[in-house]
Parts: sequence; structure tokens; C-alpha cells
Amino acid sequence: MKTIKVGILGSTGMAGVEYVDLLVGHPWFKISTLTGKKNVGKKYGEAVRTIKNIPKEVEDIEVVEPDPKQVDADLVFSSLPSEVAREVEAKFLEHGFPIVSETSAFRMEPNVPLIIPEINPDHLELIEIQKKDRDSFIVTTPNCTAVGLALSLKPILDNYGIEKVVVSTYQAVTGAGFPGVPSYLILGNIIPYIKKEEEKVSSETKKILGRLDRGKIEHAKFPIEASCARVPTIDGHLEAVYVETEKNVKIDEVIEVFRRFRGEPQELNLPTAPRDPIIVTDLEDRPQPRLDVMSGTKPGMSIVVGRVRHGESNNTLKYFVLSHNRIRGAAGVAVLTAELLFVKGYLEGR
Amino acid sequence: MKTIKVGILGSTGMAGVEYVDLLVGHPWFKISTLTGKKNVGKKYGEAVRTIKNIPKEVEDIEVVEPDPKQVDADLVFSSLPSEVAREVEAKFLEHGFPIVSETSAFRMEPNVPLIIPEINPDHLELIEIQKKDRDSFIVTTPNCTAVGLALSLKPILDNYGIEKVVVSTYQAVTGAGFPGVPSYLILGNIIPYIKKEEEKVSSETKKILGRLDRGKIEHAKFPIEASCARVPTIDGHLEAVYVETEKNVKIDEVIEVFRRFRGEPQELNLPTAPRDPIIVTDLEDRPQPRLDVMSGTKPGMSIVVGRVRHGESNNTLKYFVLSHNRIRGAAGVAVLTAELLFVKGYLEGR
Amino acid sequence: MKTIKVGILGSTGMAGVEYVDLLVGHPWFKISTLTGKKNVGKKYGEAVRTIKNIPKEVEDIEVVEPDPKQVDADLVFSSLPSEVAREVEAKFLEHGFPIVSETSAFRMEPNVPLIIPEINPDHLELIEIQKKDRDSFIVTTPNCTAVGLALSLKPILDNYGIEKVVVSTYQAVTGAGFPGVPSYLILGNIIPYIKKEEEKVSSETKKILGRLDRGKIEHAKFPIEASCARVPTIDGHLEAVYVETEKNVKIDEVIEVFRRFRGEPQELNLPTAPRDPIIVTDLEDRPQPRLDVMSGTKPGMSIVVGRVRHGESNNTLKYFVLSHNRIRGAAGVAVLTAELLFVKGYLEGR
Amino acid sequence: MKTIKVGILGSTGMAGVEYVDLLVGHPWFKISTLTGKKNVGKKYGEAVRTIKNIPKEVEDIEVVEPDPKQVDADLVFSSLPSEVAREVEAKFLEHGFPIVSETSAFRMEPNVPLIIPEINPDHLELIEIQKKDRDSFIVTTPNCTAVGLALSLKPILDNYGIEKVVVSTYQAVTGAGFPGVPSYLILGNIIPYIKKEEEKVSSETKKILGRLDRGKIEHAKFPIEASCARVPTIDGHLEAVYVETEKNVKIDEVIEVFRRFRGEPQELNLPTAPRDPIIVTDLEDRPQPRLDVMSGTKPGMSIVVGRVRHGESNNTLKYFVLSHNRIRGAAGVAVLTAELLFVKGYLEGR
Repeated sequence: MKTIKVGILGSTGMAGVEYVDLLVGHPWFKISTLTGKKNVGKKYGEAVRTIKNIPKEVEDIEVVEPDPKQVDADLVFSSLPSEVAREVEAKFLEHGFPIVSETSAFRMEPNVPLIIPEINPDHLELIEIQKKDRDSFIVTTPNCTAVGLALSLKPILDNYGIEKVVVSTYQAVTGAGFPGVPSYLILGNIIPYIKKEEEKVSSETKKILGRLDRGKIEHAKFPIEASCARVPTIDGHLEAVYVETEKNVKIDEVIEVFRRFRGEPQELNLPTAPRDPIIVTDLEDRPQPRLDVMSGTKPGMSIVVGRVRHGESNNTLKYFVLSHNRIRGAAGVAVLTAELLFVKGYLEGR
Repeated sequence: MKTIKVGILGSTGMAGVEYVDLLVGHPWFKISTLTGKKNVGKKYGEAVRTIKNIPKEVEDIEVVEPDPKQVDADLVFSSLPSEVAREVEAKFLEHGFPIVSETSAFRMEPNVPLIIPEINPDHLELIEIQKKDRDSFIVTTPNCTAVGLALSLKPILDNYGIEKVVVSTYQAVTGAGFPGVPSYLILGNIIPYIKKEEEKVSSETKKILGRLDRGKIEHAKFPIEASCARVPTIDGHLEAVYVETEKNVKIDEVIEVFRRFRGEPQELNLPTAPRDPIIVTDLEDRPQPRLDVMSGTKPGMSIVVGRVRHGESNNTLKYFVLSHNRIRGAAGVAVLTAELLFVKGYLEGR
Repeated sequence: MKTIKVGILGSTGMAGVEYVDLLVGHPWFKISTLTGKKNVGKKYGEAVRTIKNIPKEVEDIEVVEPDPKQVDADLVFSSLPSEVAREVEAKFLEHGFPIVSETSAFRMEPNVPLIIPEINPDHLELIEIQKKDRDSFIVTTPNCTAVGLALSLKPILDNYGIEKVVVSTYQAVTGAGFPGVPSYLILGNIIPYIKKEEEKVSSETKKILGRLDRGKIEHAKFPIEASCARVPTIDGHLEAVYVETEKNVKIDEVIEVFRRFRGEPQELNLPTAPRDPIIVTDLEDRPQPRLDVMSGTKPGMSIVVGRVRHGESNNTLKYFVLSHNRIRGAAGVAVLTAELLFVKGYLEGR
Repeated sequence: MKTIKVGILGSTGMAGVEYVDLLVGHPWFKISTLTGKKNVGKKYGEAVRTIKNIPKEVEDIEVVEPDPKQVDADLVFSSLPSEVAREVEAKFLEHGFPIVSETSAFRMEPNVPLIIPEINPDHLELIEIQKKDRDSFIVTTPNCTAVGLALSLKPILDNYGIEKVVVSTYQAVTGAGFPGVPSYLILGNIIPYIKKEEEKVSSETKKILGRLDRGKIEHAKFPIEASCARVPTIDGHLEAVYVETEKNVKIDEVIEVFRRFRGEPQELNLPTAPRDPIIVTDLEDRPQPRLDVMSGTKPGMSIVVGRVRHGESNNTLKYFVLSHNRIRGAAGVAVLTAELLFVKGYLEGR
């Protein structure tokens, strides 16, 4: 089997470094190019050393600029900073690179699929529409906070219908990139504001849970009311979720529904797919970021749901959900999406 | 004017120590007795030294047992641990002491007022009913998390009506007492569970916002859906609040409604009353516990509301509210309540 | 080969839980009994669930009291709380159990070896003296802070001689056990005092580095001046070390001396022995607890030394050293010591 | 009495904001100009709002560039970033401004006094030498870590003589300025390196404790061996100090020596002078940054010494010392120095 060469745009950032663990030793993909900004010319290991101890296999790769001419790859992952993402991704598209991007630049474009492989693999059909205009295509993955929410809502939506969602978040500092949040601001503190985050959580989740109908995504209609806050944790976005369902819910039943939830990645046995996309903990004081964020068969790829309980009426549901913001919420969902593209034959063109 | 001698039951705990700052130099009240458990026989300053540097005036008071015979007071504040509160408070009632208690022991009893002086001073009428059965009486103050929520909801309820509340909390470690949360559990972590807290937030807030009608409190009827979590902050419970109102809301208007909110403590100019019970911040990333918890003319007595904004429809409102859990949420609301009792003549009997 | 059944006394504490990872799957040892105090009768997984997610193999073992009659083992590890360690360990000795103890109860007894296997395996000869009086024996391992210091000093002592040591520590909260340090005291704070720690660091390190001469240990003579502080980290005691040597030191040379350092565990290829007992980092701002505490071939078993530099004269040396307080500093050094005992035939008697 | 108009260069940084509290309401000094870099043109309150809530008196002052032509002042304080300090301070000197600088730019110049007013006010004589060459002059104050060390060493030096000092530090994040240390790096972590800090602590302390002899400072000769680390605290540098003295020390006596220590600021009763430059705590586990950093009659201006004890011989001394890095260690020592200059008539020229 031919190995797919992958480049990582923005590889030296807080999410960028997570691709490395997922891709070193990957059966189908091989890192060919790592791009950065301030660290161009440095060895990768040196460039990211304050963030992470990374494997020997990639230590000596030289960081290059995010310039299509310097990138030798069959696929590029984009983890670029938001201020340059749109421009650089567009350039790579022009040069014919298929892109899986975790940036927000193109997420809400009508013809661009916004994918969580367990939820809406069918949205990849939008690639065909993109290909009418150019040779290459872009697939996006959601904001790190939307990922955990959408994954946990999907089986509820399918089984009970959803009328309304209210979610409050407890987001780790790595979600803000590097250097990110100054320590002075967050030590012993909470910052109840993350720029544009609440809007993204709502609109992206609705798109992901939307229905593809004759080449158009009909976004989910129910309100998603988010309040987002930064907390002094390292990894793992925790969310307190309140859902009003169309049908009444039984708690034991919804826990089973969570646990049985599977998607195409599990059916196809994709390399980065966890056995259980949703782990439900029985412990009364969990999930906790430090103890649970690396749970499951593919650490960081499962979300962990806990404290599943009724609200004050039988068509309401409350729970906490934890997802690893840099793995399932960024590098992991992107790699899983790329694996799906590979299996479906989208990466054969180059 | 006669000085009121006050005893503090459970004075050596995390909330107990806050009474001292509020009562040393108080124009009406004078600390006469401090009780404790493990520290009986020690000087107060020594007993609490790991928690707080406290004023010289009380340093040398000897800590005694919470025994009515050892307490010389016209009024006792109770900050007792929950497992003994009911029994000990009952004993003090039998011995004729008026009690202002921040414990949960009697909060939900039908004849016991649960008071936030700015909201429901009229509920003090229940004292008359209590007095039919005995000489003394007990008045309670709410759970620290309910205080900030109820105070912020009151002007909304009065001006727009409320259909539903969904609240998620970010609660400081001092809310769990001392020694409280082990550092191992909360450093770089969030604990999404606080025993019985969600139930208290809902039921107590409904009682406080209830209407007294012919000697009975008719609790508020709208659902209050709480999700409570412990976070690694020292002081200040932050809450993300979502409200559905009966009437549509204009944001500028509701901000004015918050800012203009006053109650009897302000009208009566009580010593511990802050000028503004509700401070509204214009800054986009506030209130923050570390920077804002001591805001206002009486530090720790004002709640701070920020990010007041619409949800996805015009009858929805979202905001964050911060209240000092040990001052406004415990010792402060109790002292303010005692001041109200004093002004209304309830403390003259003894 | 016969499997050695091992019991763990005090298995439910902060250090106790670390034995499990080291012993599940161990080629020679098999956990047979787990004792506890408050959790007697509970399943082990449930007893320690707030501290750690532990492997399935031991989840269902029932926790029993630390009573010799309830323990079926060829060897017991003791991780008992200090207040009961002396009494309980004595009882197990009477009942003929060989003990490897990480508690301080018997560490400084003249006939009791205080072992770091890479440094003073010859001190195990003291077992013979113990055996004159009874069938069983006890071997101890040092205080978690002394371990990292002693390991880093050993090659310096052997190559350059030592005149004086001044050490200041940055100790993680897990070093205080569970529940240990209240979060209120350590969040955003440093506590510059750990009871009896400075004395232990000095006296134990001198015993470990001492010379066995005709059945007696002659303790090292140079002063070890320790200042110990608790810091808000989870795992890993960091120490700032200043050493005055007898001979002048070249920095490049001493780094080589650190890196080449090996002991019997490495020669014997013991299962828990790391390839490099001492890892030296070249990075200017390391070792850091969060990034480096699990370094090496046996995570948590290597110490990491960094910033090796001269003081103001050529016979002075400064460096930082990091050691995992629960693994190399507690469970790990005990297991490694037991492996040494096994290989040397000390565990065959039972 | 004429009011002295003072400008603050670098007023929007982490140390800069502390001048405001010390100078608003000051009897002699009045803030006339505030300079900044990124915030030029903004109101001061807005410019620093993420760092501190500051008093109304200065909220509306417009931040200007650090340009001598835009500054109307009789004295400027410099809190400039190190990379521009030398150039900008030189320019202000050329324009005839007397400068009190807390930056390192000119600290070690032979003719520039490096002042802690309680220790070496006589070094101000160097101003006369400076004035031979130009109209204005510059006086510097030390690195924030050197301040606490030097103040605590001074009475030891005077009473017992010093042979050697070994110091390890636990430095708060505000010492690194703003945005300073990324939260990702310091949450639950220690960083055992602060660029050039160890060199500064040693060389500056020796200069401060040096003797002025015929226009030249003879630096102290004993070694000062520093190891500096960043810890996750907000304010207050804690230091573990080991001292070898010339004469033997009695602990009770040295505690008295610390407590009785006074300098010119106390004799002259300067506005910012604390009654006790050195507070000695009797509590066994103090000083602690969060609980003790604001001790004394002028919060943040006293250093707090604790755990004063012998090392392993009678001419050794160990203690912990805490000093507020932004007040006594920066803005406070600068304002106190300016007060001394004022009283001594150095500010009359302009």
C-alpha cells in the first residue's frame, strides 16, 4: 500500500505538536513536512521543546515556511493561527493540495464539510461540489469545544430529538494556543470570556448535526446557548450540558444510548478510532480533566460523559462531558477525518 | 445605644473567620464568644492562624465549646459544620438564643425565614409564627451559591418575569470549608460535583424568591436547573446564568435594572450594606474571581455581573455573576440579616 | 521460577497506589494482599478511585486490615502512615515476614539497611545481623526527598569528594499523602516547612552514602544543609543543590560522570531498573516537574539533573535535580530493592 | 511645600501599575505623565485594566510615548522593559531629568548608586560624581530578588560578618512582567531558570552591601551562590537562605537583630517607609506568599523572615525571606529612594 505523505501547517503550536504522536508510526500516513513561523530553519524538536518532548523520529525535521513550493505532501493538515489561516489555506488549495483543516477559516462555508467522522461522514459529499471548481478540496473539523458537545448530542438527537441546549464550559489553557493565556491572568482565576467561542459552539454544532439534502446542509434548528470560560487546567474541555428533548428520556436508557454509540470510524476500524467514542462514567464526581482526559483505547480520542441525570422534568437531561481539546478536539479529529478520506478514496488523486 | 453581644458558633472554620472582619469595629455588635471544636481552649488567633491573619482585638479570645451555658450573647451566628448544626442550633433555641444561621439545617423549614435582606425582608414575619411556640427564633441565610444567583434574579423577576433558569457554577475551594478539598484533587483540575449543591441552589432560590402569603411562603415556580463544579480558585463563586423571561428583554435596560437595584439594607443604610448590591461591569472578560471579588463600597458584599447579553431569542438573557462565597455568601449576608433584625426590633427581647 | 507473593501494607495511600503499576505484570512478584484502614472491606478499585484509575487486575481485590494473620505473602511492602508504621511493621517482623519499608519507622536503626540499590547494595549485609535475632528482616528505603539528592551526590562523592551540601527543595503535594495538603493552603502559595523533612534529608542521605565497616555503617561526615518547601505541583520533587567538592570539578566532566553512573540494578538488569539512573538534560530551563518527571526507560525511575554549573569557585557545583516522589522516591525504590533481595537470595527462606 | 511632578516610564507593565497605589495621595509627589508602548493614546485605566483595577484619579490620564518632549516632570521613575531601558533612560538623562530606575540598564555602572534606602543611603554620594559630567543623574534600585536578600543580610553582615551565602528562590510570576510566563508552562510546574537572575542576585547584592570609599564602591567579597526558579504564585518572591557567618550566631539574638533593624527611611519617617523593614514571624510554617506578602504598616514594603534556625554548626544560619516583588522589590523601593532624594535636596534643581 502506498504511504500518504502528509504535511502539517502550523506544526509548532499547541495543537500542532499533537499530530506528531498520532502520526509517528501511523500505518498509512507519514509526516513529510512541518511548517512554522518563528521557528523556520530550526529543527522541529528544538522548535517545540518548551511545549513537549516529542519522538526521535521527527526531532530533526527542519521547520519550513507554509509555502506550497516547500511542501512535499499528498495531504496537508492545517493547524495555522487564525489570522493567517484563510490566506495560506487558499494558497495551498490553489496549488492542488487536499486540506484537512482544524482552523475556523472555511468551516462555515456552504460547500465545505465540517466533519466529526462519527457524526456526519456523509457531509463529505460536498467535496464533489468543491471539485467542480478546482482540483483540490478542503475539509474542516470543528472548534475544540464544539467537538465534545456535538458528539454527546448526536445520540440524543437521534433517539429523543432536541428542543434546546444550554451549555457552559470549563476550557483548558492549551485551547488558547501558545504562549496563550498569561499565567498572571489565570492562576487561581477564571476568565469568563473566550472571543467568538460561544458563537462557534452554537453555529458549528448546528452545522455538524445538520442534514445534507441535495448538496446543501440544512443546519439543526434548535437553540444552543453557550457560555464559555477559561479555567486553570492544562488539557481537557469540560462542559456542563442541559438538554431539552422532544421525547421523554429515561436515564438508564440514555446511558445505554451513549455507550452503544458507534460511527463509521468504528465500523471501518480506522487506526485512530477509539472503540468507544463516548465513555460514560458511573462515578458521581467525574469526569475530571486531570484524571479522565486520556481515557479509552485511543487516549484522548474518546469523550467522557458523567453525572447523567434529569433536570426538573422528564424531557430534560443534564450531564457533564469532557473532551481532549488538542486530540479529539483538534489533531485527533483531523487525523480521523483524513483516515476516512483515505478509505473513501479521496486521497488518491494526487 | 446598647451594644448587642454576639457569639459565633463554628467560628474557626473557613466562613467563621470572615465574621471577625465584619464585626470588629461594628457600631452595634460586639463579639463576646467564639466557639470551636478541635480548638477548644486555644486562643482564637492561634486556632485560625493557618487560615487567616486576624485583628488583634480577637486574637486572645479563648475558643469555647458550642454549649449554651458557655455562651454569653444576645444573638448567635451559626457557622457550624452541617453534621452538628441541627442539634446544636436546636439546643441554643431551647436556651432562648435568637439565631442567625448560615447552615442548611433549618433553611427549608416552612416557618423559618431564609433571608437575603435586599430580596425578602418581609419573610422575617415568620418569626412571629415561630415565637408562638418558643421565646427565641431562628433566621437562616442561603447556601453561598444560591446567594449570588438569587440576588441577580430578583430584579429580572420583578421587571420581566422568569420562565426558566439554567445555571452552571465555578465554585472556589473555600466553599468546601477547611481542610476542605485536598490539593491533589483540584490542582489543575475541575471537580464537576458538589454534594447536594444543585438541589440547594434550586430549592433555596425558589424559597427566597417566593411570596409570603398569610404566613406561608409560596415558592417560586419556574425551574432552576443547576450544574455545580469546584474549580481551583480561592474565593468567589462564579456562575454562568441563562434565563428565559416572560417579557422580552432589552440588554441596555436590564443593565440599568441591575444597577438601580436597591433593597431595605440600602434604604436603611445598614452598616454592612454595600451601596450597590449589584455591580455591572462593562468589561468584556469580567467578572473574574481574583480581580473582582472584593469590589464595591463594602468589599465582598456586592455581587458583580458581567457579559449581560441575549441568548438566541429576545426573551432570553445570559450573564455571568460573581459573589464572594465567604462574605456575601456566608458571614456577610448573616451580619446584614442581623442588622436588619436589630433595626426592626427583633433583638430587643433578651 | 517460583512467583513471590507480595502484600502491600498501606496500599490505598498516595504512594501505595503506585505499587500497583509497578507490580501488575511483574515477572517475579504477584500482588496477593492489599491492606488499608478506612477502606477495609471495599474493593481496591473503589477504595483508591479518587486517587487513581488502576488496572483491572487489582480492581476487585478486597482491602483487608494490616494484620499478619490476614496477609498471605512471601514479602510485604510497607507504605503505612507514620503514626502506625513502627507498631505494625514490628508485628509483621514477629510473624516472620520479610519487609521492605518506605516508612521512616526503622530507617535510622543501626542494623537496618537504608537502601538505594544503585548506591549501597552492600548495606544489605546488615540483614545477616538482624537474622541473628529473628527469622525475618526489614530493609528500608529513604524519604522521597533524600532519594533524588543521594543518587545525584553519589557519583560526585566517588569522583570528587564532598565537603558540604546545601539543598533547597520544591516538593510536590503528593509527597504529603492523601488527603494531604488542603487546597486552600497551597493554591498560588508556597509552604516553607515540612515537618522533620530537613532532618531526614540530612541524616538519611549521610547514612545511605556511608561506608559499611565490620557490620557498622559509618555515616558520611560532610554537612547537608536542607531547606524544604511545599509547592503546588502534583508529582516530582525538584531540588536546587549546591555542593562543595574536595577536588576541583570540570563541568563537562561531571556531566559525563552523571551520565555514566550505573549500579547493581543496571548490571543485574533488574526489571524495574532504568537504563540511566541519572539523566542529564542539556536544556537551559529544565528539569521541570510536569514535563520531565516521567523521563527514561522506566518512567519515574530515573532522576533528571539539569543546569549543571559552577558556583563562584572551581570546587563548587550547582545543579537542579528532579525525582518522582511516588515512584523512584517511594514505591519504585522499594520494588527495586525487593528485586535486589530476590536476586541475592534473601527471599527464599519463606 | 512644592509638589514634585513625577513621570512613570513603562507605567503599563506589571511593576508599573504598582507605582499608582504608592503615588496617588502621596504627600510630596504627584503623577504627571504615564508612558507606555502598545497603549499610547489610550486612557491609563483602559491600558492596564487586565492587570489591575486602579484608582479613579489616574484612570483618565492618557498614556504617551516615553519621549522626553512629552514628559512634564521633576523626576521620572523608570520601569521600562529591559530591551529599551538603556537607550530611553540615556535620552531622559540628556534632557536633564533626574531618574530613579528599577531597570538593570545602569545598575552596575561604577558611578551609579544601586540603592536600598535602609542599607546604603550613603551611596547616593555618587550622584555628585555623575553631576560633574551632566546636569541630571540616575539612581537605580535592585533586581526584585536581590532586594529581599540584601535587606535580610544587612543586619547579619553588620553584627556577625558573612563568609558565604547560598540562596534558592521561589519567584512569583509577576516578576516576569506581562504577559510574562505562559500559563501552560507554569500551571502545576516549576521552571528552574530565570535568565541572568542568578548573576544579578549575586553581583547586585555585593554592590549594595559594598562600602563607599573615596568615591568608589568596594563590593562585598563573600560568595553569593544563587539558584533561581519560577513558581506558580502571583506576588512575593520567597527565598531559602543559608549563611555562614564570621562570628558564631545565637538564634534568639539574630531574631532580635532582625527586628531592631532600622535605616534612614525609618529615622526620617519617609511616607513610604514601613515601621519594620524586617518582620520576623514566629510561626513554624511561614512566611507564605499568599498570606504574608502584604504584611506590615506599609503593605508590601516590609520583608518577612521566618524559620530562623541554625545549620549544622554555630556559625551557620538558615531562614526563609519573603519580599513583595512589585512593591518592595520594584515600585516601592524606587518611591522610597525618591523620597530619600527629596529629603536630601537632590530634587530641587529642576
